[in-house]
This record gives sequence, structure tokens and C-alpha cells, in this order.
Amino acid sequence: MSKDTPPLFAPPLFNRVAFIGIGLIGSSLARVMRRDRLAGHITVTARTQATLDKVVELDLADHVTADPVEAVTDADLIMICTPLGAYAAVARSIGAHLKPGAIVSDVGSAKKCVFRDLAPHLADGVHLVPGHPVAGTEHSGPEAGFAELFKDRFCILTPTAGTDADAVARITALWRAAGMKVEAMDADHHDQVLAITSHLPHLIAYTIVDTAAQLGDDLQQEIFKYSASGFRDFTRIAASDPVMWRDIFVENKDAVLDILGRFDEDLTTLKRAIRQGDGQTLEDVFTRTRAVRREIIDAKQHTPEDQKS
Amino acid sequence: MSKDTPPLFAPPLFNRVAFIGIGLIGSSLARVMRRDRLAGHITVTARTQATLDKVVELDLADHVTADPVEAVTDADLIMICTPLGAYAAVARSIGAHLKPGAIVSDVGSAKKCVFRDLAPHLADGVHLVPGHPVAGTEHSGPEAGFAELFKDRFCILTPTAGTDADAVARITALWRAAGMKVEAMDADHHDQVLAITSHLPHLIAYTIVDTAAQLGDDLQQEIFKYSASGFRDFTRIAASDPVMWRDIFVENKDAVLDILGRFDEDLTTLKRAIRQGDGQTLEDVFTRTRAVRREIIDAKQHTPEDQKS
Repeated sequence: MSKDTPPLFAPPLFNRVAFIGIGLIGSSLARVMRRDRLAGHITVTARTQATLDKVVELDLADHVTADPVEAVTDADLIMICTPLGAYAAVARSIGAHLKPGAIVSDVGSAKKCVFRDLAPHLADGVHLVPGHPVAGTEHSGPEAGFAELFKDRFCILTPTAGTDADAVARITALWRAAGMKVEAMDADHHDQVLAITSHLPHLIAYTIVDTAAQLGDDLQQEIFKYSASGFRDFTRIAASDPVMWRDIFVENKDAVLDILGRFDEDLTTLKRAIRQGDGQTLEDVFTRTRAVRREIIDAKQHTPEDQKS
Repeated sequence: MSKDTPPLFAPPLFNRVAFIGIGLIGSSLARVMRRDRLAGHITVTARTQATLDKVVELDLADHVTADPVEAVTDADLIMICTPLGAYAAVARSIGAHLKPGAIVSDVGSAKKCVFRDLAPHLADGVHLVPGHPVAGTEHSGPEAGFAELFKDRFCILTPTAGTDADAVARITALWRAAGMKVEAMDADHHDQVLAITSHLPHLIAYTIVDTAAQLGDDLQQEIFKYSASGFRDFTRIAASDPVMWRDIFVENKDAVLDILGRFDEDLTTLKRAIRQGDGQTLEDVFTRTRAVRREIIDAKQHTPEDQKS
């Protein structure tokens, strides 16, 4: 048990928590809150009745409602777990109904857009602490969640210089209780780093699987059959939630297009080397990339708890 | 035990076997041959003394030699396990020294070039049965091999209509003994299918890891740190043997450039959708690719022994 986990019978970290939207990430966090009694009361609101029914069935909340305003009234923590594209509309509907001192946080995979879409609608006494638990699977929906999803993974918070320190500390304590290593960085920088480590890999995986999906039926069956030789890793990544990823690419457009431009140049270099039979260029690049793997494995040795992932 | 595994005390499948080159795949096959007594005598030849020393240390052979001609003289099976780029030189040096009835096979990841580079140097009574055990790890060298590498994976043989049926049956029996599901197809078709399922994914992974490797040092450390969010899968693929993969791309140029052209078009479509904020196109593609994953998982249910991989 880490030093941030409250002792048994201590007051919960948050008295009243409202989840706005609840999929893989939100439901996993709700499970953590239930397991560790981090919330005195949990309300969940979602767009569809089917999701609310599922939340009741899974016993993830004390109360469910289709009305976001009802959900956030009196809430100490409002955790936004919708796709990024819904944030502005959510903020417009709940902004005027938050109690002074409430903390608004989220779990989205891009962070600059969070300030753009949420901040204008929040009163001065409300604290915005954007967060990104870097964890997930290719499955989605509240039934796909599990409390161990976050264990030993990183959570990146992107507060500004002016963000209330106590609010940041409480969100930090929440994710630490879920088993995460919590880091803070500038939202701009977050979006650049994740464009490379996550968004571009997903875009490439989506593309290559779609390229294969457009080939003739006969060839496709063989592609499935021999997918273990590299392709299958891509299909797992490309099975991630379509709406969530649609919004990530739209909202982190600048950083993604920048890194995609560099990738394009590098791919063109390799393509030319193949066409010209220039084995030396290919070997040089492939030797360089092998060293990167070695560095990642070495880096992991400095954080032993990460070796499982 | 499959029906193709010889009973104990039966004569070995091949009296004398010669390995030309021995890395991850060759040494794994040698381990299978030792374990199941499939070869009466194994000779290994390799380019470097270090490799030959390693083979002796690992007890993978009855005899090692730096001389390919000595290795193949009297051999019933000559198994070529060098990178594809060495095949023509190997064939030139050993071609005149093979005994009538000998079988020449290989483990290369492209197959059209095998006919081009080997066939002209083989006498009429020598049987060419090209093969591709579709298995591997990102590690290389004889010390990286293990007998279970092939278990439940596919091996693709590419004989022609005129190939001796008995020779094909014996190579089939060899790979079945290693635990593989053996399939036959035309060399051209093999090269197309593998270009999609294996060669393009590797090229893309090499590219994206190299793109990241060229970024500034500070950013790079963070990329390593947050690599679990998609990037790490690519670094594993991009850690594969540089020389082996150099030769695959050079030798399977036509099929790789063809599928790369299609990939480029599809990536351009997604890039334009991101730039234009066209979420619908993104969502449509991402929904299509998710279905592919489902089909692959369904396909696996028809071959239960494949579910582990």
C-alpha cells in the first residue's frame, strides 16, 4: 500500500464524484474508487440509456442520471470521460452548475484542446486539472474496464502555473491509488510526445489494416491466416475505439501532422532505397532502430515495476 | 505425437544434413533435429569462425567447417539459412558438389528470388524445395534459437509443378516434426501475401522507430518513457535482424513497392481527413479496421492450436 492510500475508515478522497461519460477508462477508475472507497458517492451520467443500464448492472455507481446538470450539482470531483469531441458541449451544459471549489478533471489523450474547450465555461473558484492516464486496451465500453488497468503505468497531468496546488495533489493521490506513476508536464509538450508514442502508431496501424481490408477476398483470407508474421500486432492497435480515436486526431491535429510529415519523409527515403536496391541505406536504418529497442529495454530497468507491460 | 513423427529407433528422416549459415531459424531447426533424432549427422558451415565456435559450444552439430564444399559433399539435405542476398554466391560455390538425389531447401522470407538464385546452379538430379517457416523473434544468431519456435505456426513450401513429390513429402515431414502446419503455394503468390502480412509491417515499424530516433535527445527520453502507449510494439518489430531484412526488401522489391504504393494512398487520405477536420472519414476507416480484428479472432477459432500465438 503506497503512502498516498488513505487508511481504512479515513474519510474518502472525494465526497461526491460525478462521471460524465463512462467507457473503458472511466469504468476502470470507478472500479478503483469502489474497491478502495475513494468516493463517498458516485453519480454517472451518460448519453445513452444502454450505458446507464450497464453501469447499474455492473454496480459502478450510487446513482445514474441522463441529466449532466443533476450529476454535477454538489459534486466535489467531475471526471470527464467522454471522447474529446464532446468536451465543449459538456462544459457549456454543466459550467454554470458547478459548486465553488469543485475539481474538473478528465482522461483524454490530447490536452491542449481541454483548456480550449473547458476553461471558458468554468467559474473562477472551480479548479481544472486535466489528466491523461496512459493506459488502455483495444476493447471499449464500461463492461471492458477493470481496476488493474492502470497498475504501474504513467498518468500525465497538465496543470498550469496558476492551478490550485491542493487540487493537483488530490488528483495525483487519486491516480496513485489506482497504481499509476504520476507526472506533470505542459499540455503542449504532452501533445507532442503522445503524437509520437501513441497517435502516429495508431494512425499507421489503422492505415495498414485498412490497406489490407481493401484487397480482394481471397488474398484477405490468407492475410488473416498469416497475420502472426507482423500484421497481427497492427490489427490489435487498429481495433481501438473509432470515435475516441477520431477525436484524438481531430483535436491533436497540429502535432500529429507534424510528426506524420517527418514519418513520410523517412518512408520515402526507404522506398527509394528499395527501388534502387540500395541495401546499405536499409541496413544503416535497421541497425539504428535496433539500438532504440535496446535503449527502451535499458530504460525499463530503471523502473522495475514497468517490466511487465 | 503427430503421425509424421518417426517412431523411436526408426532411421532418421535424413542421413546427412548440411546447414549453410545458421542463425535464429537454422539453429532452432538444428535443435529440433537433435531433439527428435531427425538427422543421422549434421554439418554446419558459416562465414565466421565466431559462429562456428558458437555452434560447437551449443552442441548443434556433429561437425563444423568453414568450407561449404566440404559441408555439402554427401549431404542428403542442404538447408540454406543465410540472408537471401548470399544465396547466389552459395549456389555458385556448392552447385557442382551436390550428390544426385540431394534435396536443397531454405528458410528465406521471399521465394521468387530463391528459384532465380539457386536453380541455375543445381544439376538435374538435385531437388529444390524452397520453404519459409513463418516464425521468428526480434533476436538473432544461433544462441537465440529454441526448438519450440515453430510450434503451431505455418510453414509455406513453394515447389513447382515439376518438383519431385518425394522430396516435397520429406521437407513437409521435417517441418511437421518441428510442430508446423505446412502449406504449399506458388512462389509469386507467397511473395505477395508476405509483402502485406510481414514485409510492409516491418518496413513501417522500422520507419516510425527511425523517425523517433532522429528527434532531439530530450524528446527521445520521453518517447522511451511513454513507449507503452503504442510505440513499444513497433520497437520490438524494428529490432529484427538488419541484414536479413535488408535482403528481404531488396529481393521482394516488386511486391513490397506495390503494397507500399497502396499504403501511401490510404495514408494520404487519412492525412487529408485530419487536416480538414473530417471526422466522418476517420471514423469510417477506424470502424472498418476494427472489424478486421474481429475476423482474425474468428479465423483463429477455426485453428485452435494457433490461439496462443
